Amino acid sequence: MHIDNLHRIDQELCYLKNVTALLSWDQETQLPPKGVEDRSEQLALITSLAHARLVSETTSTALDALGSGEGLPALERDFLRVMRRAYNREVKLPAAFVADEARATGLSQAAWQTARQNNDFAAFLPHLKTMLDINRRKAEYWGFSSNNAYDGLLDLYEPSMSAADISTVFIPLRERLTALLQKIATKPAPDVSFLDQDYPLDQQAVFNALLMDEMGFDKTRGRLDISAHPFTTSIGPDDVRITTRYFSKNLLSTIFSVIHESGHAFYEMGFPPELRRTCLADGASMAIHESQSRFWENVIGRSHSFWERLYPMLQSRFPKQLNAVPLDLFYRAVNQVKPSLIRIDADEVSYSLHIILRFEIEKQLFAGTLAPEDLPITWRKLMKEYIGIEPQTDANGVLQDIHWSMGSFGYFPSYALGNLYGLQIHQRLLAELPTFDTQIANGHFDNIRTWLDKNVYVWGARLTPSELLMKITGEKLSVTPFLNYIETKYTEIYA
Amino acid sequence: MHIDNLHRIDQELCYLKNVTALLSWDQETQLPPKGVEDRSEQLALITSLAHARLVSETTSTALDALGSGEGLPALERDFLRVMRRAYNREVKLPAAFVADEARATGLSQAAWQTARQNNDFAAFLPHLKTMLDINRRKAEYWGFSSNNAYDGLLDLYEPSMSAADISTVFIPLRERLTALLQKIATKPAPDVSFLDQDYPLDQQAVFNALLMDEMGFDKTRGRLDISAHPFTTSIGPDDVRITTRYFSKNLLSTIFSVIHESGHAFYEMGFPPELRRTCLADGASMAIHESQSRFWENVIGRSHSFWERLYPMLQSRFPKQLNAVPLDLFYRAVNQVKPSLIRIDADEVSYSLHIILRFEIEKQLFAGTLAPEDLPITWRKLMKEYIGIEPQTDANGVLQDIHWSMGSFGYFPSYALGNLYGLQIHQRLLAELPTFDTQIANGHFDNIRTWLDKNVYVWGARLTPSELLMKITGEKLSVTPFLNYIETKYTEIYA
Repeated sequence: MHIDNLHRIDQELCYLKNVTALLSWDQETQLPPKGVEDRSEQLALITSLAHARLVSETTSTALDALGSGEGLPALERDFLRVMRRAYNREVKLPAAFVADEARATGLSQAAWQTARQNNDFAAFLPHLKTMLDINRRKAEYWGFSSNNAYDGLLDLYEPSMSAADISTVFIPLRERLTALLQKIATKPAPDVSFLDQDYPLDQQAVFNALLMDEMGFDKTRGRLDISAHPFTTSIGPDDVRITTRYFSKNLLSTIFSVIHESGHAFYEMGFPPELRRTCLADGASMAIHESQSRFWENVIGRSHSFWERLYPMLQSRFPKQLNAVPLDLFYRAVNQVKPSLIRIDADEVSYSLHIILRFEIEKQLFAGTLAPEDLPITWRKLMKEYIGIEPQTDANGVLQDIHWSMGSFGYFPSYALGNLYGLQIHQRLLAELPTFDTQIANGHFDNIRTWLDKNVYVWGARLTPSELLMKITGEKLSVTPFLNYIETKYTEIYA
Repeated sequence: MHIDNLHRIDQELCYLKNVTALLSWDQETQLPPKGVEDRSEQLALITSLAHARLVSETTSTALDALGSGEGLPALERDFLRVMRRAYNREVKLPAAFVADEARATGLSQAAWQTARQNNDFAAFLPHLKTMLDINRRKAEYWGFSSNNAYDGLLDLYEPSMSAADISTVFIPLRERLTALLQKIATKPAPDVSFLDQDYPLDQQAVFNALLMDEMGFDKTRGRLDISAHPFTTSIGPDDVRITTRYFSKNLLSTIFSVIHESGHAFYEMGFPPELRRTCLADGASMAIHESQSRFWENVIGRSHSFWERLYPMLQSRFPKQLNAVPLDLFYRAVNQVKPSLIRIDADEVSYSLHIILRFEIEKQLFAGTLAPEDLPITWRKLMKEYIGIEPQTDANGVLQDIHWSMGSFGYFPSYALGNLYGLQIHQRLLAELPTFDTQIANGHFDNIRTWLDKNVYVWGARLTPSELLMKITGEKLSVTPFLNYIETKYTEIYA
């Protein structure tokens, strides 16, 4: 009876989450400009209804009565664990704190936008301090076992992983990536001037549709739209939507967004029937979710085999621009390593270094060893050290990302951890499907998706990231497969 | 305090209504096919949350305490009346009845779709009987003062108007329209074969965008999309969306849908600031809403002045198809009178006759003087009598409309009443803006919209339809302005 009550509440929460997802998707893709204000109110109402449902007397009574679910089937015990975690996250934050946080976040985001435009870190600084303070308090409400509040925040995105755990993998990662980057810098860069042509947007859209069909994106269960920043959202188990954007002078941007977001979408579409419409129909963590998107984007989407299959199709959409460009040059263009000031423009080699830099800064901010005032100086110093270049402006430096203005401290590591998880999973997949490259070259993505279905997606949020990794690979988190992949691939490309 | 409680509940209900509107709009325009099942669940949940909020203890306590709102300002008294009406509608229906109704309606709609496809009235008959029975019970729950349950249903769409009231205007309407139709039938038909060409869909869409700009549709507060059946929906006071559809062989269909739905949208966008986000931001009734859409579609959109302005723009989109067609012939084409079996294809003269036929049938069904079994025979008899033609199949006859399968008995009269209200309002507008036609010919729709803003939209749902009509025109419902308009216009066109 208690378990039934919990399931009933969970199902309502799922539908309310779907509704919130639709309200947000619509805001990013369809909403007429003047509708924004009411949309915030609609979102706030649905969020507050969901909050009330989750922290209700019924939930707490059921959770108390059920304990750890002894005697229940494994699936129900996993369900109980995830429900309890969600309940604890919500119930521990006082209503007044949540209201303060929402207000401060709104102001902070607005201040950040202006500050970035005006390259004015000083204007953003007081808001950054407020967001740090709020998140320190939040970590205290949630609790953490180390002496750094940062661990309390990290746990939200990557359950049971501490800053110390992350450092263990980030230190060797940084050393070897920095070394590789320095080596590549001494090599001649390919001539990729063909990218700097006009690629008509309607043909980019036609190619994206074809690309999704090739990868096996089921359009009866999802769709592609346009938004300012690409994202994936689940409005229902059979309604998973991705977005992209188009620039006539940047053909690669939209293509790799579509592949990346499709990777997220395959995960969301792949949760098995018994998890649907429950809180278990979710990724194991943000990093595991990124492992899927970055696996499709990089390991598959930037592979030679992939373009053996897709490049002729791309050429036939852009004959004028690409017919004179051989496949091998195109392959080099999608794998060009070129240190960039901006994280989202970074190549596969330097991307993780951008993340490690942010992780180091976050860790020190919460440990109190770095004052917020000193952020711009520290940023430039670490950029020089890790990536070899430094920004002339804070707009292209410390102010570039939205995350801190939203108070999302602890989120960044997910991106780099996703790379590691992805390659560990890839290693296992290769062992079981040795024809991986041939399958891709022949457009047989179904075998790859089926393997991911059976080994990754099937678990939803039932396991923690480390449990899931152990289940799939029999191993703990490791940098080796990722570094082997990167070093082999780029040694070959850059001779 | 009680009034504040009511306002708080009302505001939440408004936002929930917005959310429901978005879920439905998305279903008709965007939803991937397999997302339909979850969408029903999402809609059911939001509807049930709204229901619970409306019939809560807080609402009933507040309504009891406030009575008719003596001592409150006029606006608050109107608010109270509309809230009480909504509350009574919801609270009087037992939960079990509502569940039965939802289930039966789902089955009935599905059965109707198949029956229409297969031209099989017998297969739909048992569902029709169930829907009649359910609606008879519904009328009884709600209560009605006459001896015909039909009056209990009519009141939902057209407050305080009985079948007897409607008959008073429908009888002269039928007589004079039938007579006019017979006269026109003796006149030669214009050669409108130019309509039977291919009109590329992308150019139809370009013209629609231009048409909306010309009429003054504010695209920062709304948008146009594509759906199977055109409709208008408010997702917020600054987010009013219309839809249309496209057929390459039917240029006029999409144009008149856009004009019609824009008329609905102007009404929704025109509610004044003090009514926004309250239950008073609504049309006075379905018929008053139709009066606005049909006014734009017919009185403005099928006028000679309108096409003096718009026809050159249309020709420049379709030079090959239209350059040889003079304005006067195009004007005759958009006003061609040709008895049709299908209501939604009907011209301005015969349209109301289709409605009166349905009204007569509904009235008799609920009075018990017509057995559901006899519907097909009665339908053919009345079609012959009113419009002069009869259907060879039930699919083109009694099975053509969705309304009865949904249990929307009492809705049809709104369409014809809308014609009457619209022309009474037009008469008053003409008196105050005698340059009406010149304004249209010059594309100065702003003066017309401003007049409607100040005289119609400003009231929202504060007045009943008859009060609103009295306020605007100083008169009661009358067929005279509509019949004068129709007879003058078509006597001129058909000489």
